Amino acid sequence: MSARNFRVAGQRLPRMDGIGKVTGKHVYAADFTLAGMLFGKILRSTRAHALIRRLDTSRAAAMPGVRAVITAADIPAVRFGQAVRDTTVFALDRVLFMGHPIAAVAAVSLEIAVQALAAIDVDYEDLPAVFDMEAALKSAVLVHPEWATYKALPIIARSGNISGRARIKAGDVEAAFAGAHRVYEHRFTTALQHPGYTEPRAAVADWDANGNVTVWTGTQLPFDTQNTLAEILDLPSSRVRVIVPGIGGGFGGKLRIGVEHFAALLARKTARPVRVITTSEEELTHSYPRQATVVTLKTGVDRDGHLLARQGRIVLDCGAYAGSGPATAAIALQVLAGPYKTAALALESFAVYTNKGTSGSFRGPAGPMANFAVESQMDMIAADLGLDPLEIRLRNIVHEGDRGPSGEVLRAVSIEECLRRAAAAIGWDDRKPAPGRGKGIACGWWMTTGGSSGVYVKINPDGSATLVSGAVEIGTGAITGASQILAEELSLDLADISVTGVDTQAAPYDYGAQGSRTAFSVGNACLAAAADLRRQMFAIAAAQLDAPVEAMVLRDKHVVAGDKSISIAEVARISRLSGGGLIAHGTAISPSPAYDPGRLENHPLPAWNTPSFHAHAVDLSVDPDTGTVDIHRYVVAQDVGFAINPTYIEGQIEGGVAQGIGQALSEEIVYQDGKVMNANLTDYKMPTALDVPDIESILVECASVAGPYGAKGVGEPPCIEPPAAIANAIAAATGFWLPSLPMTAEKIARELRARRK
Amino acid sequence: MSARNFRVAGQRLPRMDGIGKVTGKHVYAADFTLAGMLFGKILRSTRAHALIRRLDTSRAAAMPGVRAVITAADIPAVRFGQAVRDTTVFALDRVLFMGHPIAAVAAVSLEIAVQALAAIDVDYEDLPAVFDMEAALKSAVLVHPEWATYKALPIIARSGNISGRARIKAGDVEAAFAGAHRVYEHRFTTALQHPGYTEPRAAVADWDANGNVTVWTGTQLPFDTQNTLAEILDLPSSRVRVIVPGIGGGFGGKLRIGVEHFAALLARKTARPVRVITTSEEELTHSYPRQATVVTLKTGVDRDGHLLARQGRIVLDCGAYAGSGPATAAIALQVLAGPYKTAALALESFAVYTNKGTSGSFRGPAGPMANFAVESQMDMIAADLGLDPLEIRLRNIVHEGDRGPSGEVLRAVSIEECLRRAAAAIGWDDRKPAPGRGKGIACGWWMTTGGSSGVYVKINPDGSATLVSGAVEIGTGAITGASQILAEELSLDLADISVTGVDTQAAPYDYGAQGSRTAFSVGNACLAAAADLRRQMFAIAAAQLDAPVEAMVLRDKHVVAGDKSISIAEVARISRLSGGGLIAHGTAISPSPAYDPGRLENHPLPAWNTPSFHAHAVDLSVDPDTGTVDIHRYVVAQDVGFAINPTYIEGQIEGGVAQGIGQALSEEIVYQDGKVMNANLTDYKMPTALDVPDIESILVECASVAGPYGAKGVGEPPCIEPPAAIANAIAAATGFWLPSLPMTAEKIARELRARRK
Repeated sequence: MSARNFRVAGQRLPRMDGIGKVTGKHVYAADFTLAGMLFGKILRSTRAHALIRRLDTSRAAAMPGVRAVITAADIPAVRFGQAVRDTTVFALDRVLFMGHPIAAVAAVSLEIAVQALAAIDVDYEDLPAVFDMEAALKSAVLVHPEWATYKALPIIARSGNISGRARIKAGDVEAAFAGAHRVYEHRFTTALQHPGYTEPRAAVADWDANGNVTVWTGTQLPFDTQNTLAEILDLPSSRVRVIVPGIGGGFGGKLRIGVEHFAALLARKTARPVRVITTSEEELTHSYPRQATVVTLKTGVDRDGHLLARQGRIVLDCGAYAGSGPATAAIALQVLAGPYKTAALALESFAVYTNKGTSGSFRGPAGPMANFAVESQMDMIAADLGLDPLEIRLRNIVHEGDRGPSGEVLRAVSIEECLRRAAAAIGWDDRKPAPGRGKGIACGWWMTTGGSSGVYVKINPDGSATLVSGAVEIGTGAITGASQILAEELSLDLADISVTGVDTQAAPYDYGAQGSRTAFSVGNACLAAAADLRRQMFAIAAAQLDAPVEAMVLRDKHVVAGDKSISIAEVARISRLSGGGLIAHGTAISPSPAYDPGRLENHPLPAWNTPSFHAHAVDLSVDPDTGTVDIHRYVVAQDVGFAINPTYIEGQIEGGVAQGIGQALSEEIVYQDGKVMNANLTDYKMPTALDVPDIESILVECASVAGPYGAKGVGEPPCIEPPAAIANAIAAATGFWLPSLPMTAEKIARELRARRK
Repeated sequence: MSARNFRVAGQRLPRMDGIGKVTGKHVYAADFTLAGMLFGKILRSTRAHALIRRLDTSRAAAMPGVRAVITAADIPAVRFGQAVRDTTVFALDRVLFMGHPIAAVAAVSLEIAVQALAAIDVDYEDLPAVFDMEAALKSAVLVHPEWATYKALPIIARSGNISGRARIKAGDVEAAFAGAHRVYEHRFTTALQHPGYTEPRAAVADWDANGNVTVWTGTQLPFDTQNTLAEILDLPSSRVRVIVPGIGGGFGGKLRIGVEHFAALLARKTARPVRVITTSEEELTHSYPRQATVVTLKTGVDRDGHLLARQGRIVLDCGAYAGSGPATAAIALQVLAGPYKTAALALESFAVYTNKGTSGSFRGPAGPMANFAVESQMDMIAADLGLDPLEIRLRNIVHEGDRGPSGEVLRAVSIEECLRRAAAAIGWDDRKPAPGRGKGIACGWWMTTGGSSGVYVKINPDGSATLVSGAVEIGTGAITGASQILAEELSLDLADISVTGVDTQAAPYDYGAQGSRTAFSVGNACLAAAADLRRQMFAIAAAQLDAPVEAMVLRDKHVVAGDKSISIAEVARISRLSGGGLIAHGTAISPSPAYDPGRLENHPLPAWNTPSFHAHAVDLSVDPDTGTVDIHRYVVAQDVGFAINPTYIEGQIEGGVAQGIGQALSEEIVYQDGKVMNANLTDYKMPTALDVPDIESILVECASVAGPYGAKGVGEPPCIEPPAAIANAIAAATGFWLPSLPMTAEKIARELRARRK
């Protein structure tokens, strides 16, 4: 099928979930209600690291309206977790961070549940704590003294407070440094950033009489939540049903279990449905924010600015549990290499435990942190060598057929086009010096996560099609995109496609709404299902039209063979009468690219799947007195392979850049002695609509081999480059790079004042 | 697979839905609640046939708490119906029966909705009405003067008040009568019987922002309800989603749309969820009770009691709309022929309109009415000829390879075994005359309804299987039976099978829980799905075990090839990682048997699919003063082909006989001048647990060709023979047959008194 003939794919069609969301009709998980439902609340530690000397729930349990109080003593002793099974539902004998769940209450009203929390008596005995991630690397204070007894994926390297260490090595770094014209070494830090989803984490659980539990929740990964709940509840996974009524944003913060287990455990105890919803304070003390990191980068270049060698190290502060830290740390290495040809690489990452809340996989996990270091340093090198920042990148970027850091062969490489188009759009060549104003550029790459997707497509007797998928529409428009592909393949309109809600029991398995994969992977599954449905329809039409299958095509909702045709609706009716109807199960899985195992050590995610490329350029001013940054223009050139729906891709770019601006300039969960100092949405500063400029999107289409119609993953990349692009523009405006996110007005003003002195 | 090796199929396993139902956890449609839901009520006509001169809803609409009042003027002008599209949502210019919906109200409470009904002003102008079905055949008063303008299935013969007439003809009846030893002619009447489901009809409707409606309802036929709603709402059917949370009995009374359309129309008007539930009074004035009938039967026999010819006519009183009357009337003809060899047949049926509530397809539609006539007359003939009632039947019954009334060849015929075993069990040969005590016997046949079933089966990574079906578990245990077949085929336990609720959007098409077809047809679809899953599993296992597919079997939850094996769970995990998981779509459709079109006229259901055979025998006493019947023993010998789960089949037999006892002895919706005189559950007399004797079930297994493991449909037959068996036993006890159902104590006592005089 040629792109020029597309009727539905590639079109700027409204999102299928749009009207429900803008009219308020859409039911989110937090709206979901069952008759007779109780309200659950969680008692959380007020100490960062302490022994629980006494835990007395008797006063709370006796309160009128309280239906259950549960603690670790009431539930199966299970440790769960992705890479490392280190996590418990409640603190056991010790609390490991402020906010650590100690008990949970179910009551007939939220007010009573809150009152009951206050009636639970806890006596603590404080223990020495470790809060600094670099100190934790060598600390005698262990967050998990028993870490060696935990089960973990075999590939994960652990020791002490290190829950995961990964390495990429290529060439001889020391020799290359020795022969380099210059070697640069810098240290960067980034802060904890909350995913900023609009809807808190919310779940309702209800048990049936056969001991099966259904959980309605706003999760990105219903099948992962199903499995984790099964482990926690000590049940076969098929006895746990996860339904996603709707989800008000996720951004990676709703990948892993949130409050579902509390709801399920309380519902089991009370034999009543129970709902648990988080508050803003809980979100900012115990959710899955983007890890804070420390990045050190040592880069050797030749006289012309060609990269010869790079030694990099990134440390991720994962908090009290590993969470997705080991995987995030591993991914960081590809970003530390950057989309550049560098013969010698020695990259290393560490996920470490500290006595803080657990971090997670925020959109483009590790991407912006590592990219901030790499792309800031590129500009520092360019400045030192007197090179144009665009030019130094063009001299070093990868091209078609080059090898990536894991040794994989890179295909559909478009970084040059992205750089040139972003630069052209921002007016890169027109950078007249103006006091306090500067332009910055940054580029990068990212992967399209693999994993399998299955869809189940029915063609209905009215000629429409129903798509049953286990992939959640988390607000990206990805399901609209997949539906556009399905409609295209079946010669239907998008309005002819309906999508069921996600239900682990009814839907085929899907690896989930993560890693920029949904439209890509579900779209591929739709291609497979549509191919099967065409075969089924053509077989029926052959009998009806007395025409050979080979002569048939779908056109305008009909099976057409020469001058004969029959409507899809009619074929569906015949199929239902003569058999079970037109139904197909389509599946897709992205094969991992070949890589060089000799380059990798303890790396669970060895090579980029279907990489995307992108360049961001920004034009901004810095107020010389207040340090306030005012962004005038922001341009993104992103290779999306094929723009399934340009409008929603632009939405992804605009949203991602907004989050990137927040990370760059204002967002930080501030810890002091283990306590979050700004656990509210007044003091935790996300950009508002007024803080975000118009964002100009340039959709580059360098078709991938693996994606539907050549598409690549689009969701995560937009938030990767903003910190670096903004840092470079600030440097252009001020003459200095701030190596520490967020680059708040306070930090900039302080530096401006110091330099004026 | 040999029956002797079955581990799951054929076992007396507890029903999967049992614990939920007995513990009260199960959610029925009437329990289903949405946040913000309104309550709908229906204003019904108080006249049987009248013009609506004025309909003023303004006072009701202005009441505080009333959110909408709708009438025919507010909704699409659509006529719907199965065989004849004669039905409207609301009365148009005329009401056709007392109880005819005129308007509907949605309010914030049920109390306000009821008050609002009283505030709607209606002025009527009475019209001449027709209440008697035989009068209606020739009446100048037409219930539908515009009948000829209605669309109908082409096969349906209509005229005046006749909504359907069907005929079966074979041989020369007149010549056979002329040559007969004796010719008997009798007239029988049967009464309106409510299906007696425990849960009233209930539906909740909610519209989404895209103009799609979801309806949660206790329907037996979700796909039929979907289609009918789509017609009424003037939408493509795929924009209507029907979900069945649970259903508290159906018995054919919940096949067709009940209150779903009122809920959907009110919800559309109010933009709020709306629930409508019927009251007992509404159930007894406007549901789908079993049609009242008048049957005339003329039968010629030779000297030895062999049937030579039969002329039969059955008239069904369908009420104001045809409903399922035309189909029911057609089915009646096979039952009028009886399971007997009769060379000459002239059978005719009429479905007629009267100014009463619409009747429907109660369990074994037409079966007990026609069987009551046929089997009462068999005993009358036997008595007249001095033959044993068992003997006259044995002389006339069909045998393997005989032709049925439509000319179809009969296979798996077991009527002799059923008769002999029922007779033996009741002690037929021991019938010493005792005053007021008698034994009766009756036999019959019934079909297993066809139509297609699709299932969608997933094998989960814990080794369990999920069955997604569009067939409703209406309380028969049929879904447990189908699941037993699935478990058997996959070498799983029944506990390893989970079943999703019914949802027209997610589930494959199913023709629905009707016509004794669910375990039969869904079971066949499960066989097909399991065969596909075995192929998929063996292909994966071949690579894992390095063994040929041909060597593989499933055994004890493993794929086994010689001494090698791999668990199904492991195969499922591999399949999920390498593709979309183990999923199969299995379908089944029963082909209609060949028949002789020359025998049929206007007959939409030409021949018995997979017929079952049955004989009932009863031992009872009749109180000589009060006429009260006391049943001592009741025996059923029913050919079930293969007893998938003997326990639930016995449950079906016990429930069916209980309903048959009700029809035989006490149940009648009493009309007088178009008004129901006993529209409450005190005066409408269903048997209670105390009225129903222990019922002894003999499961005959004469394997069918078409059913899973040889199974036949089992649900409807048990209610067919009780009226005749009881009538014959009453005759044995009293010396007279009552040709009129119900055979109440009053009628018997009156006849006893008359005979004593």
